[in-house]
Amino acid sequence: MTDATQHILGAFDRDLESLQAHFLKLSGLAEAALTEAAKALETQDIALADRVIASDPAIDELEEFIQMEAASLIARRAPTASDLRRVLAVMRAAHSLERVGDYAKNVAKRTRVLPPSAPLEGHAGTVRRMCSLVVRMLDEATRALVQKDAPLAEAVRKRDLDIDQMYNTLFRSLLTYMMESPGNIGPSMHLHFIAKNIERAGDHATTIAEQALYLATGSMPSEPRPKAGIEVEG
Amino acid sequence: MTDATQHILGAFDRDLESLQAHFLKLSGLAEAALTEAAKALETQDIALADRVIASDPAIDELEEFIQMEAASLIARRAPTASDLRRVLAVMRAAHSLERVGDYAKNVAKRTRVLPPSAPLEGHAGTVRRMCSLVVRMLDEATRALVQKDAPLAEAVRKRDLDIDQMYNTLFRSLLTYMMESPGNIGPSMHLHFIAKNIERAGDHATTIAEQALYLATGSMPSEPRPKAGIEVEG
Repeated sequence: MTDATQHILGAFDRDLESLQAHFLKLSGLAEAALTEAAKALETQDIALADRVIASDPAIDELEEFIQMEAASLIARRAPTASDLRRVLAVMRAAHSLERVGDYAKNVAKRTRVLPPSAPLEGHAGTVRRMCSLVVRMLDEATRALVQKDAPLAEAVRKRDLDIDQMYNTLFRSLLTYMMESPGNIGPSMHLHFIAKNIERAGDHATTIAEQALYLATGSMPSEPRPKAGIEVEG
Repeated sequence: MTDATQHILGAFDRDLESLQAHFLKLSGLAEAALTEAAKALETQDIALADRVIASDPAIDELEEFIQMEAASLIARRAPTASDLRRVLAVMRAAHSLERVGDYAKNVAKRTRVLPPSAPLEGHAGTVRRMCSLVVRMLDEATRALVQKDAPLAEAVRKRDLDIDQMYNTLFRSLLTYMMESPGNIGPSMHLHFIAKNIERAGDHATTIAEQALYLATGSMPSEPRPKAGIEVEG
């Protein structure tokens, strides 16, 4: 290896490190938004919900910055195929994190207009637990991507099943409540849509984990993602 | 403008055209998968559902190809900021289309295991109409992106409201059916999850339309995306 090659490799690695640092920061912002959104729901804290909504543009801007930084890295360093795959994976995962931020914002928006009759008791706690799990999945999936850690990514992927099961349990509980009286349907639907947003955020965490697996092992996971819905609801 | 500059501009445009042609092809595949998945559900055609499932790897491969092609374009042509934004928008939108393919696959998988007691009558038709609308949104959003057509993108974005309303109507109808007997809950949940997948595909069409608006106008739409859920379910 010549000195020139070493110099070029070093420059790519430095750029990748900077890109990944911004990516982990984005993950932190998206995770914080989800956590705060669940807290605002449970404590009916409208001011906190407003802050979650107000924080979304910062997430969008950081994502945009990461996409431009990644493109600039590709243009300046013309990375090899395997290095390029890492950059592309970060670009895709950053897009997923931006969507997670949108879901947190949606949860906060629904919290703002939640009718006082909504069956918060019990259900808001379940939503918080779903949120905690998704936040942990996001944290692990993004670290697995940056560190090319296949076992960590695999663990995230398996935990998607827990999210599905929590969602299904919550849904059935809301259903029981809705069956008691048609007047319960509206408020319960709000909580249902909130849970759906969190489930989607979990879906993105799993997608990031699958990208991490692809980076670490060179192939997409062969067995399909475990899904609770089909078996449980059959 | 020197001859050399003209030559460089021409090369970028040719590359972009090739990238966009592959992108439109990907959109066509994703749209076909959704259409066929809805048809398989309505006609209970398991063989067709199997073909939808089998067609998903081709969608994944084309998306991967597009990401590599876009990266190679960036590396070779080092496009200007506004050209770069077009390439990045195609990369993001291709990722969305890959997800749409996944949703079509999920619908087909659920169709395969749908219990005979599922309340298909009426509901499968609604699902097909939702699918038709999403397919039209995808077609228009991807064309709006390639052609930087702001009015077309805006039209797609507004139609997201129709999807939400169709989903809400379907959900309420399924709810009524579930309330009749607890035994109806399982099969109805299958249809509910199918509708959710299609609603998510519509969400991606809207995301692509928003990217198109951003490209065409230089800023993201300022007013929030119209949403039926909050007002209708309040």
